[in-house]
Amino acid sequence: MSDLPFRRVVVIGAGLMGTSVGLALRRAGVEVFLEDLDPANLRVAVSLGAGKPLGTDAEAAAAVDLAVVGVPPAALGRVIADALARFAAATVTDLGSVKAAALTDAGTHAAASLDRYVGGHPMAGSEHSGPLAARADLFDGRAWAVTAHPQSRTDAVEAVEALALACGAFPVRLTPAQHDEAVALVSHLPQVASTVVAGMLTGAAEDHLVLAGQGLRDVTRIAGGDPELWTQILSANAEPVARLLHEVADKMHQAALTLEKLEPASSAVEDLRRSLECGVTGVRRLPGKHGARPGVFAAVPVPLPDQPGELARLFADVSAAGVNIEDVRIDHSPGTPAGLVELSVDQDAVPALLEALARHGWDVHG
Amino acid sequence: MSDLPFRRVVVIGAGLMGTSVGLALRRAGVEVFLEDLDPANLRVAVSLGAGKPLGTDAEAAAAVDLAVVGVPPAALGRVIADALARFAAATVTDLGSVKAAALTDAGTHAAASLDRYVGGHPMAGSEHSGPLAARADLFDGRAWAVTAHPQSRTDAVEAVEALALACGAFPVRLTPAQHDEAVALVSHLPQVASTVVAGMLTGAAEDHLVLAGQGLRDVTRIAGGDPELWTQILSANAEPVARLLHEVADKMHQAALTLEKLEPASSAVEDLRRSLECGVTGVRRLPGKHGARPGVFAAVPVPLPDQPGELARLFADVSAAGVNIEDVRIDHSPGTPAGLVELSVDQDAVPALLEALARHGWDVHG
Repeated sequence: MSDLPFRRVVVIGAGLMGTSVGLALRRAGVEVFLEDLDPANLRVAVSLGAGKPLGTDAEAAAAVDLAVVGVPPAALGRVIADALARFAAATVTDLGSVKAAALTDAGTHAAASLDRYVGGHPMAGSEHSGPLAARADLFDGRAWAVTAHPQSRTDAVEAVEALALACGAFPVRLTPAQHDEAVALVSHLPQVASTVVAGMLTGAAEDHLVLAGQGLRDVTRIAGGDPELWTQILSANAEPVARLLHEVADKMHQAALTLEKLEPASSAVEDLRRSLECGVTGVRRLPGKHGARPGVFAAVPVPLPDQPGELARLFADVSAAGVNIEDVRIDHSPGTPAGLVELSVDQDAVPALLEALARHGWDVHG
Repeated sequence: MSDLPFRRVVVIGAGLMGTSVGLALRRAGVEVFLEDLDPANLRVAVSLGAGKPLGTDAEAAAAVDLAVVGVPPAALGRVIADALARFAAATVTDLGSVKAAALTDAGTHAAASLDRYVGGHPMAGSEHSGPLAARADLFDGRAWAVTAHPQSRTDAVEAVEALALACGAFPVRLTPAQHDEAVALVSHLPQVASTVVAGMLTGAAEDHLVLAGQGLRDVTRIAGGDPELWTQILSANAEPVARLLHEVADKMHQAALTLEKLEPASSAVEDLRRSLECGVTGVRRLPGKHGARPGVFAAVPVPLPDQPGELARLFADVSAAGVNIEDVRIDHSPGTPAGLVELSVDQDAVPALLEALARHGWDVHG
């Protein structure tokens, strides 16, 4: 990738995020140096192939043109300011979860202008922490918030956007304040909600917990995140998160009151149904995996003979063709001897699907 | 499976759950008949291979020895009572999410004793509904609550436990009241929490939602469930759910108040950290996938040369051997030239792993 606006990157902080950036940049052929106060972290990151230790190599340090700060939120401002001073020719960015506080802190600590600093926040992570959980593909297809401030230089903003792209992510420009409002909703609120629900399990009987299914596991998975890290993240974004938490708490009390008032055919049933429908509407607004918008699928109609097992045979044939079914609809026209199945599949998979179905005797017309 | 205590099963209600039971029983070689008020549902279930339509076949009906009721909660009691009357020699069970209300309702509708009825609740589902979402493996490795009441016959309880096992699940005996308390915590509370968080997304800006990551998707996945179904489930278990919802709402207000009081080094920071740790403790109490207890893994120590990329090479070799790494620890002894990596893998995979590592030149000693 010789067209990147940087050639030598230093990643400061070889935790989950920093090490993953190192791995992703190495994958893209970029020269990466690593730093971490903890020699064990550094050793693991180097051993994973995320880069070389920067150590005291003054020549390498002088050649660094992009510094990526991946340290805990409470240390961000100081380390950003430090990186601006140490790497005098470099663009400096960070991977922190809260952007307004990091910018303010960096301004407090910096001796000179912050014009080479542009905030960054890749929207990926793991409930595990540390370099051992790092992956080169952690950012593939994910959003990467790029939060320029009024003094940020244009070339610095472009360098951080290029970093996001080189790591497989897509950059999203937001102001620091817009970013913090957004993550309060899409990240910090669900984190606390997950934590509170998981906390309710501490007192539960063993033979009650054995009934736990995938739903509870999904809702509580992120509650396993590092409490120290999350204390720092939530503290740095306290005001927007507190506002949303009060709102959610009010809605939960309201749902409980509705349940207490239930009688058959009372208006409380309608209230309950409406709040459940509101949740469905909300979850449907989420972009698909990898930020893809829904609706890029093609519908392939297949006439279905009215015999037992035909749908099972159709699904088996589609699966054997290696095609993923995203959605299925069946036309229930009454009185017709055969039904019509509409398979929604990725646009690109349509030719292979039609070919495979025709080969297995299904009556498809391209 | 000729040792099953039933030979002919009727599944009443060919939705997601009923059709999945049909598919799982067909997989086990059991003869299955299907009924559904909606002819389209019935046709899809038959076409998937979940069984044959019972229709007006009086001979088949007379031979049914197990009836499985898979209808919405509000209809459960009536349909259970009806099944007891229609299939006079059969054990009757259901797949409903709430057990005390179903038992009471069945008692109201039944002309005679409920001794052939034993409640059941397989702990599996999907945010999708209807027979098209059904799968033969839906219950594999899942808990299946079996809720006998004092009048239940022993042979009926055994038949329902055999049904759970035949569908790939493991039976868990609970009283109806114990069951309802348990699912209020492990299923209904997370459902409402997920719904409320998802509902908060309805008013969010598009370019805020693009920052949504896997965490929010996991927390809100079950919010996509059928509002009508969940209205009925929550209504049938209103009191235990309302109690938990008030408790969770109080904790959320408390978390918000803590965030509002934060100052560096204030005791509020400690409160926040403690509540986050409580969530970690709770989520660690959840049984593993398929109800497996953690700790059945073996640790394989591998000395690691202190050269860049060695850990990456080790992981690649393990992966090529087809072995799944459940956990990794690195011994960080300072001053030693080489580190020691401890790979946790399934007990059964140890011999293959040792052989593969030795073949790739790793210094392992079985």
